[in-house]
Amino acid sequence: MGLKLGTIQVYTGNGKGKTTAAIGQAIRAIGHGLNVIIIQFMKGEINYGEVIMAKELRNFTIEQWGRKEFVSKKNPLQIDIQLAQKALKRAKEVIMNKQYDIVVLDEINVAIDYNLIEEEEVITLLKTKPKEVEIILTGRGATPRIIEIADMVSEVKEVKHHYQKGVKAREGIEY
Amino acid sequence: MGLKLGTIQVYTGNGKGKTTAAIGQAIRAIGHGLNVIIIQFMKGEINYGEVIMAKELRNFTIEQWGRKEFVSKKNPLQIDIQLAQKALKRAKEVIMNKQYDIVVLDEINVAIDYNLIEEEEVITLLKTKPKEVEIILTGRGATPRIIEIADMVSEVKEVKHHYQKGVKAREGIEY
Repeated sequence: MGLKLGTIQVYTGNGKGKTTAAIGQAIRAIGHGLNVIIIQFMKGEINYGEVIMAKELRNFTIEQWGRKEFVSKKNPLQIDIQLAQKALKRAKEVIMNKQYDIVVLDEINVAIDYNLIEEEEVITLLKTKPKEVEIILTGRGATPRIIEIADMVSEVKEVKHHYQKGVKAREGIEY
Repeated sequence: MGLKLGTIQVYTGNGKGKTTAAIGQAIRAIGHGLNVIIIQFMKGEINYGEVIMAKELRNFTIEQWGRKEFVSKKNPLQIDIQLAQKALKRAKEVIMNKQYDIVVLDEINVAIDYNLIEEEEVITLLKTKPKEVEIILTGRGATPRIIEIADMVSEVKEVKHHYQKGVKAREGIEY
């Protein structure tokens, strides 16, 4: 079992569908017996449908490393920095120990952009990852170095969004 | 239960992540007790991981309406046209009868682009859908009229793809 060759995928851009693309990729992989963990940066306590599903499904783990509240880009709290750094430490651990076939680092691009974690540390992790492990990075604002090191990069562009039409966040759709 | 207000989402563009975004959306919705069907146009017999998972999961159905072989855009076979039209008929049925909260019409944009089904019929379906039903259309080449009628449109752009690097389709990742 497992992947012979794990690559690095990036889903970035300002449109809807980056995290769900990673979740869909996880489900596809689980169907074939692979083991997936999603490590969520800057997300916590929100009752996402995928978190409920992960509790039910074999081979699917989601860990949330964040607070419920939004993080301020200009003035992140010390707790936000600490949580993001713990998430990165956890990511290193599961990647280097090959504990999962696929490791999704959800919103990690934003955590870098907000200076919660060092880009350099993430680049080093990507460069030294075991070759069997697939890594998926999501979040808007992927840096040029992340894009350079990735094997596959999709930019999800917002053409239109229903928030513009006044549709509020709906359980089962937006979370 | 159910959605009070179902919208129309479109995932188009030439990048990887459109179908997986729809699958991820399905999983999120199922976590909150919603019912989802994915009707796949022009896909059949391939052992997608998500199809395996749908057999395991309550409230998650995938129906494949297509052959294993690629459809020729210039010269589609009669069987391809028939299968796509049956898929559209099935879509109408489940949408108008409100059998599912979310109906994903996977690769329907391609089926329109290949002239397997009439754009006009799809537009009429979208215009007359019950308001509680969420519809998600995927596939490259969404037409201007589809984009116009949609509430939310994401264009997934290929920045780079690992096929370019010679990585072949991998079980659990590409299917």
